[in-house]
Amino acid sequence: MSGSLMQGPLLISDLLTHAETFHSHGEIVSRTVEGPIHRYTYKDASQRAKQLANLLESLGVQHGDRVASLAWNGYRHYELYFAVSGMGAIMHTINPRLFPEQIEYILQHAEDKLLCVDLSFLPIVQRLLPQLPHLERIIVLTDDAHMPADAQQTLSKGNHPPICYESELAKHNAEYEWPRFSDDAGAVLCYTSGTTGKPKGVLYSHRSQILHAYASVQPDAMNLSSHSCVLPVVPMFHVSAWGVPYSCTLTGAKMVFPGARMDGAALAELIEDEKADFLLGVPTVWLGLLDYLRQNDKKLHTVQRVVVGGSAAPLAMIKEFQEVHDVFLIHAWGMTEMSPLGTLCTPTARLLSLPLDQRYQYQRKQGRPVFGVALKIVDAKGEALPHDGSTFGRLMVKGPWVIERYYRSDASALENGWFDTGDVATIDPEGYMQIVDRTKDVIKSGGEWISSIELENIAVGHPDVQEACVVGVPHPKWDERPLLLVIAKPNHQPTRESLLQYFEGKVAKWWIPDDAIVVKELPHTATGKLLKISVRETHQKHYL
Amino acid sequence: MSGSLMQGPLLISDLLTHAETFHSHGEIVSRTVEGPIHRYTYKDASQRAKQLANLLESLGVQHGDRVASLAWNGYRHYELYFAVSGMGAIMHTINPRLFPEQIEYILQHAEDKLLCVDLSFLPIVQRLLPQLPHLERIIVLTDDAHMPADAQQTLSKGNHPPICYESELAKHNAEYEWPRFSDDAGAVLCYTSGTTGKPKGVLYSHRSQILHAYASVQPDAMNLSSHSCVLPVVPMFHVSAWGVPYSCTLTGAKMVFPGARMDGAALAELIEDEKADFLLGVPTVWLGLLDYLRQNDKKLHTVQRVVVGGSAAPLAMIKEFQEVHDVFLIHAWGMTEMSPLGTLCTPTARLLSLPLDQRYQYQRKQGRPVFGVALKIVDAKGEALPHDGSTFGRLMVKGPWVIERYYRSDASALENGWFDTGDVATIDPEGYMQIVDRTKDVIKSGGEWISSIELENIAVGHPDVQEACVVGVPHPKWDERPLLLVIAKPNHQPTRESLLQYFEGKVAKWWIPDDAIVVKELPHTATGKLLKISVRETHQKHYL
Repeated sequence: MSGSLMQGPLLISDLLTHAETFHSHGEIVSRTVEGPIHRYTYKDASQRAKQLANLLESLGVQHGDRVASLAWNGYRHYELYFAVSGMGAIMHTINPRLFPEQIEYILQHAEDKLLCVDLSFLPIVQRLLPQLPHLERIIVLTDDAHMPADAQQTLSKGNHPPICYESELAKHNAEYEWPRFSDDAGAVLCYTSGTTGKPKGVLYSHRSQILHAYASVQPDAMNLSSHSCVLPVVPMFHVSAWGVPYSCTLTGAKMVFPGARMDGAALAELIEDEKADFLLGVPTVWLGLLDYLRQNDKKLHTVQRVVVGGSAAPLAMIKEFQEVHDVFLIHAWGMTEMSPLGTLCTPTARLLSLPLDQRYQYQRKQGRPVFGVALKIVDAKGEALPHDGSTFGRLMVKGPWVIERYYRSDASALENGWFDTGDVATIDPEGYMQIVDRTKDVIKSGGEWISSIELENIAVGHPDVQEACVVGVPHPKWDERPLLLVIAKPNHQPTRESLLQYFEGKVAKWWIPDDAIVVKELPHTATGKLLKISVRETHQKHYL
Repeated sequence: MSGSLMQGPLLISDLLTHAETFHSHGEIVSRTVEGPIHRYTYKDASQRAKQLANLLESLGVQHGDRVASLAWNGYRHYELYFAVSGMGAIMHTINPRLFPEQIEYILQHAEDKLLCVDLSFLPIVQRLLPQLPHLERIIVLTDDAHMPADAQQTLSKGNHPPICYESELAKHNAEYEWPRFSDDAGAVLCYTSGTTGKPKGVLYSHRSQILHAYASVQPDAMNLSSHSCVLPVVPMFHVSAWGVPYSCTLTGAKMVFPGARMDGAALAELIEDEKADFLLGVPTVWLGLLDYLRQNDKKLHTVQRVVVGGSAAPLAMIKEFQEVHDVFLIHAWGMTEMSPLGTLCTPTARLLSLPLDQRYQYQRKQGRPVFGVALKIVDAKGEALPHDGSTFGRLMVKGPWVIERYYRSDASALENGWFDTGDVATIDPEGYMQIVDRTKDVIKSGGEWISSIELENIAVGHPDVQEACVVGVPHPKWDERPLLLVIAKPNHQPTRESLLQYFEGKVAKWWIPDDAIVVKELPHTATGKLLKISVRETHQKHYL
């Protein structure tokens, strides 16, 4: 017996219609690539998104077509988000920080029809353009005055000259009715960064994006409302800036887009000018901001919370935000395959009531899942492990915004209905999850697991150590044993003995690496992560 | 092209599984019909809901079967909510305040299989039992010690003796796996109070209840989180206590159930003891609480917000909560046909920044819709009217938790895809909606509309008037004209002239009633509302 309520689809266009109607004065502020600050309202954005939908329709964009972007966080990118998905096409955001060959692969694999590009990224496009058979046209996200002089020569595709976004938009009116269709339709496409192997696409649906937005705005997640002022430094070119453009629109929150400038000085100025109270980004960005503030003896006055994701925030960062700026750092965890939101460690009354030192121990955790994400830790055989805060397990997830299969793949990405995140984690009795390691990096010693990350975190506390890397390498008796590699601080010369002794009393004896080597350099990925696979290869015979 | 994410259903059982796993210590506190306070956790509740599902299964309850309740807000009712819907049956809450013949009609119409009853309501059941052919059994929501001595005689149905909830529950274990099924399946059934005509059923689905819960918990709605402490005085026997049992479970909030005692003293004690910070109920309940607090010179110390729905809160109540207790009164509006949430008038930064007098003008409004509810005002022909804060229109709604058709009816309840709420409202440029009148009560004079409620609100300010009623009655020239009827205060004798003069300067001249009559009494419905239809009938020839 089915319910007697309306069964209409959950569509992304509804978000903007709602904001236009009930939060028409809500502001969207953007630092532009061209220079000045741009400022308008949800009502203006909605009008322009409709003009854009008419423009895209005139270019032949149809339901299900992919429209790609290489763009910063800004109002034109925001208009693309809503116009492309709203009309039933697929908004395909591309990460310009990938290697050019990865970008080329992605554009080929997705068969994008149009590519919308900020001025900053034209050189990449000019280089790749000849290799992209499916691409029909380039749209340059600027006005007439800023179109490059050689655009016709360098950005034409076949007999299609590039389009100037503003000039063409102005030719279309804002009479447009957003179509209704199944909310299972693809809305947004994002490829994983692909540190190993080719990038893989994840196609988010309208339903998943709306549910994700509902889950995101709740007080124990991002706590967004019509009186929030949100600065997403996390890029719209990867996992939809953690869904912020949707969740802000759902609530009518003010949004502040930083454009291409994400250095400490630029961010501090924007935060102060616009009175941002909620920031989101990866640790590197906040290191830059905190450095700038420290060096210039400045403080954050309006910010209440900073969400940190992408990788773990160091304890020093949690402390500096709290003790210098009175800002609560919220650890969040998720991944491209999860749209991306999984867990957050938010300032509950209980956490706020703890002495700071105890509170920080919680704040280092990735937190509790929002409703919609089911989460468990399992052993090698897939058996659920206890929530005791110390047992390690493979972290498995499921839910309506978790991947089932990669884009254009028929193979299920699941194991018994759950997605294996590739992370190893603990869950404590109160439900707080903490990432311990990546599954491929955790060290399997005598049937037990050792966290390479925890050992590295300890090693970097050694007075002579600048950077540390711990890998598990084959061992005749224990399968694997940890090996420590360090880069010394300039003019320091740590000994093997002092490095190994440094672990004593800090971890169980059997966790302590069997050997330590001082090296000149360590291999890193394009995005700055340690390339442990290569370290393991180099040292695979170390204990044999 | 469909998305590549999981497409599993949104099920009510997932809420409790989530709370059990990640908010296992979250508390549910109940004042019981038997007397003492009962206290347990989401984890306990989840275990007992599973025992209950096993018990219901042993009684032959199947997917889609209706299981009815006549019960107060309490933990056993909560367990029923999750066990019945969770197993795929339909939780049918019945309002014990309806007339016995309405309750009988509802039980017959829904063909309920089981009826679960608090001790307080056994007399109703004993009376109706012979007339209910579909009903198989009564479950008495109590323990062995409190089973009535004559239960076997008075509560058996056919050869089925009544079941004692606690004794029977204890016989079943908590091994139960919630089934997965389409989230369009019916989950909860509620009948309208039916002031005119027979009560009509609205069957909420799993999907609608989950979406409604997501929308409810956001900061600009009920602002619920794991550190909330919520006291729903609004009854679980009508429109699921505004969805609070679901939304609290979604977030892990502490819930406090008042049981059968909703007088001021009982509520004040419970609020103080449990440190409730968020209350929900109808104006009458808060009048009782405020009276008690005033007379006993007490203050609310822990409460931050009170949600008022059902009917409009008087200005004096908004002021008393704010100025005496530092509590923000949130007007909410919705209806059985809307699950029920439509709009809320929440404490935004902008409202909080206004001088109190201006702020109160906003607080009298019903507020802005949450995302998910689309809302418009239209004229008689269905044309949309402007959001200028003064134009009246019929209030139309749509969305995934708005009715499409009544239970067991094939007829659409919609007009061009929208549900006509039967209310007349204005919407201001910032999106705030205010109910002006009921469509059937608004006075149509010379093609323009006059609010009977606004005239009544003015008339009760007259020093001689105790109660006022304004109706539109037929008029040879203007179609309808307003007629004022008043009950005088004891020992007061208002004249016709003074009554009519009292409107001058307070409304447009053409709004002023053409005549005023002092009467001894006015007709009311069972729930205390003015029965204007009867007043209109009595006086239909007044201007002819």
